Amino acid sequence: MQQGLYFDELAVGQSAEITRVVGAADVEAFAEVSGDTNPAHLDEAYAQTTPFGGRIAHGMLAAAYVSAVLGTKLPGPGAIYLSQSLRFRRPVKIGDPVTARVTVKALDAKKSHVTLETLCLVNGKTVLDGEALVLAPRRDA
Amino acid sequence: MQQGLYFDELAVGQSAEITRVVGAADVEAFAEVSGDTNPAHLDEAYAQTTPFGGRIAHGMLAAAYVSAVLGTKLPGPGAIYLSQSLRFRRPVKIGDPVTARVTVKALDAKKSHVTLETLCLVNGKTVLDGEALVLAPRRDA
Repeated sequence: MQQGLYFDELAVGQSAEITRVVGAADVEAFAEVSGDTNPAHLDEAYAQTTPFGGRIAHGMLAAAYVSAVLGTKLPGPGAIYLSQSLRFRRPVKIGDPVTARVTVKALDAKKSHVTLETLCLVNGKTVLDGEALVLAPRRDA
Repeated sequence: MQQGLYFDELAVGQSAEITRVVGAADVEAFAEVSGDTNPAHLDEAYAQTTPFGGRIAHGMLAAAYVSAVLGTKLPGPGAIYLSQSLRFRRPVKIGDPVTARVTVKALDAKKSHVTLETLCLVNGKTVLDGEALVLAPRRDA
C-alpha cells in the first residue's frame, strides 16, 4: 500500500510545501469542476469593476493546494482529513506564484491526531491561513 | 456590474443549494488542478486497501461546491469570502450526488458581514459541515 508518513514519523515543527503559479487555465478548470462561475474569476471586464481590479482565483483553489500538500507530502497518502479552517486574507491574482505550506503544530498520540498550521503565501505575503486536523496512520494498524 | 444579493436583501434562514453528482472525471480534474494526486482519489486498487474500500473524492471538492453556492447564488457575485470552517464527516464516493447548501445564520449590519451555515449532504447524510463568513455588497457602495 502506497504510504505517506506514519504518526510516529511526525514531529512538531516538521514542514512541507508546494508552489504553483495560478494560470488563467487553472481558474477556468476550477470553475468548471466546482461549478463556481462567479464572473470575478472568469470575466476580466466584470472583474475590473470589483474592488480587486481584475480577475482573481477562487479562494478554494488556494485551499486545494493546502489539501494537496497534506494528501501527497505531510502526512501524505494514508492520512484522513478531519477538519480545516480557512481565512482568506488577500486575493490571489492570475499569474501569482502560490506557495502552500503546512507545519506540524501539535501531536495527539492517543487519537493519532495531527494539528497543522496551513498557509498560502504569494511573494512572502499571506493570502490564506488556517489550521488542519488529520488522522495519521499507525504502522501497526 | 453583474451582481448577486445585496446585504439588505438577506435574511436569517434564507437558503440556497446546488447538487452535483461526483464523477470519476471530476475527481481526476480536481487532482489535476489542485496537484492532489493522492492515490486514495485516483487509484482504485490502492483505494480498496484503505478504510474507505474504494476511491473517494477530495474533501476539498465538496468544499468547492459550497464556495460555488456562495459565489453564484447566496450572496452571489459581489460578495467577498472572508473565512470558512470545514469538518469532513464522511467520505464522498465516486457517483455520489452531493448537495451543497448554505443558510444565512447571522447578519452583522455594521460590518456587512454574513455568517452562513454550510453543509454538504449525500442521500440525506452530512458529509461536510462548517461555517462561512462573507462580506456582502451594499447597494449604495
